[in-house]
Amino acid sequence: MERINNFIFSGKYCGLKKDGSLDLGLMMSAVPLRVSAVFTRNKIKAAPVVISRKNSGNIIKALIVNSGNANACNGKYGISDARKVIGSLSKETGINKDNIFICSTGVIGERLNVPAIEGAVPELAESADAAGFDDFARAIMTTDTFSKKVSSEVVLDGAKYKIIGAAKGSGMIMPNMATMLAFLFTDMPLGKEAADSIFKECVEKSFNSITVDGDTSTNDTAALFYPAPEYADGKHLPAKPGPAFKAAKKAVLDACLSLAGMIVRDGEGATKFIKITVVNAYTEKDAKKAGLTVANSPLFKTMITGEDLNWGRIMAAVGRSSVRMRPDNIDIYINGKPVVENSVVSEKLDKTMEKTILTPAEIHFKIDLKSGKSEWTVLTCNLTKEYIDINASYRS
Amino acid sequence: MERINNFIFSGKYCGLKKDGSLDLGLMMSAVPLRVSAVFTRNKIKAAPVVISRKNSGNIIKALIVNSGNANACNGKYGISDARKVIGSLSKETGINKDNIFICSTGVIGERLNVPAIEGAVPELAESADAAGFDDFARAIMTTDTFSKKVSSEVVLDGAKYKIIGAAKGSGMIMPNMATMLAFLFTDMPLGKEAADSIFKECVEKSFNSITVDGDTSTNDTAALFYPAPEYADGKHLPAKPGPAFKAAKKAVLDACLSLAGMIVRDGEGATKFIKITVVNAYTEKDAKKAGLTVANSPLFKTMITGEDLNWGRIMAAVGRSSVRMRPDNIDIYINGKPVVENSVVSEKLDKTMEKTILTPAEIHFKIDLKSGKSEWTVLTCNLTKEYIDINASYRS
Repeated sequence: MERINNFIFSGKYCGLKKDGSLDLGLMMSAVPLRVSAVFTRNKIKAAPVVISRKNSGNIIKALIVNSGNANACNGKYGISDARKVIGSLSKETGINKDNIFICSTGVIGERLNVPAIEGAVPELAESADAAGFDDFARAIMTTDTFSKKVSSEVVLDGAKYKIIGAAKGSGMIMPNMATMLAFLFTDMPLGKEAADSIFKECVEKSFNSITVDGDTSTNDTAALFYPAPEYADGKHLPAKPGPAFKAAKKAVLDACLSLAGMIVRDGEGATKFIKITVVNAYTEKDAKKAGLTVANSPLFKTMITGEDLNWGRIMAAVGRSSVRMRPDNIDIYINGKPVVENSVVSEKLDKTMEKTILTPAEIHFKIDLKSGKSEWTVLTCNLTKEYIDINASYRS
Repeated sequence: MERINNFIFSGKYCGLKKDGSLDLGLMMSAVPLRVSAVFTRNKIKAAPVVISRKNSGNIIKALIVNSGNANACNGKYGISDARKVIGSLSKETGINKDNIFICSTGVIGERLNVPAIEGAVPELAESADAAGFDDFARAIMTTDTFSKKVSSEVVLDGAKYKIIGAAKGSGMIMPNMATMLAFLFTDMPLGKEAADSIFKECVEKSFNSITVDGDTSTNDTAALFYPAPEYADGKHLPAKPGPAFKAAKKAVLDACLSLAGMIVRDGEGATKFIKITVVNAYTEKDAKKAGLTVANSPLFKTMITGEDLNWGRIMAAVGRSSVRMRPDNIDIYINGKPVVENSVVSEKLDKTMEKTILTPAEIHFKIDLKSGKSEWTVLTCNLTKEYIDINASYRS
């Protein structure tokens, strides 16, 4: 059971999801919190994103999340409905409205059932306790087939701390926070500057480096909640390189990578976990762009499903990414075995290897651009008929 | 039967395709030709693209095309193999090697079977005649389920001319010339400047505005062949606005749009033809970008397959395209009926309309950004399980 000092959680069914599973989650904190938050870059933003972005500069004492409805594209009603949810939690708990962080995920363009949520809030707040994290993690799920949680310990300057996290998202995942929610909670004494710089980098390397279908949403939010330095005792971690800063960053990155990996593994209809590392690119940006172009190619993703090594599709995707490269000088390795050398088929690739190289459930592609010294890793999954089944009838 | 003065065509089976269908096509001209050509922007270019790009500044007297093998990613062998094919045609016909245009389409990374092609060239050249266009059009097909041809007449300054065309492509189609070949042949007296400016604009509005799966290839080529002005009698069309220039442009554009539409209709596994027009965008570039972002969204494409009006997916795609817009001010019409008004669900959308609006085989989406005066239309198709079947086992 994931637990962390001062944080309490709960999850309830309030009536938003058709299947009767948990659809309302709550976190409250005994100590005032600060939050580092990254929101969707989609120009069309859901109402809760607009409100939480505004509140993210304030002290945070509670987080309320509903699944089953995105509360996006509801015009003026979206904002007022989200405010009613916040108002109801504020009334029940005495927490100031400005100190509440709110998120929604689900179908776009349908009014939020506010009375259903209001009806469940008293019990939701009442039942929150240190053992409620599992319910919270389940309450934020949509098409996810398993709840995604992470928990780890970290030692900073000799003292032990914890970090726990929960995420949701399986389809519509792609860089820039696609229909994905990820929440991390820690008791590490992070200063604001340290927290912001650590979280930004970790999100870039994890949640912004995964893709299921290339789509992005109106609601995506990743947030790291930590004790507000101004209300906590003792020293706070400065935003300077040093053993404690490094250890804190590693803990946050590991938690983010772990959750990001779970999201990809749970990609809608996915049966294969794919890791693509582009090495020796001119810049990290080039490496990331090339990796994501391959990862988002439907021809690449269906090739994996068919376990048919049509490596030209990888070359074609790398080529159309338009990053700096020497077109005749590219190497590709699959699970460590050479497949392409200097842009032509490797002499070491024999018929047996060709037939078996795509059969594992986890496949690691290394693409060597031999043009520079930067690298980036992206995670994705294959494209199957089940993806289409799931998404052709998502609302029904 | 499509025929045009001075052009002769043929198509043969030489042994490149496993199913024994035509895989080698030839065009020869009784008069010297010039060509306006647009090639793939993929940084990794197939050998025939490299050679034809070089030859495209010369007089052209023949075009040879093989399907079944892309002759891409074959390193130094790619160029020498393509040169052998050209050499064999040159020897057989007496046409200078520099006056031959060559294209290939098919699997990437496998050596071209040059002896098979060389063996078929004599009969291919021998059999070319004015009635051979149908065979030529069939010889350039890969996963296409039907051959794509167009033929029309045009009157310039009182004189009648013709334009005929053939194209191939069904999967891996997307802007910037994705695994697509399109050839137009005309006897219109185009000047070089007029031909180049007309063809560039027409390709942008047709072949570069269609998408099946967002992928692009190493081999794509669109080319307009016309009588070389310096060898033809009479006046040539200047690159100036005027009735004849306009009529010529309209004829080329109609031919391109017609072929582009056929490619989309034949999208791998597609069952629906989708037209997306973005209006009142800030610039044409914005309109095109927003339209293509929607068209390439797997969530949008699977929604069409399920005939389930989850219009939030359109909004989410428009939003993430990041073009200039007023996020609260977007209208969406489907086959003329209002679905979204000012970014919220239209009050005119009732339950019956919602259930039936995506059932037609042809669906026209109009997205009004209300931000400017520019518009653009893109064509695409839906994503079905058959796409995955086709592409999971393309090589086998």
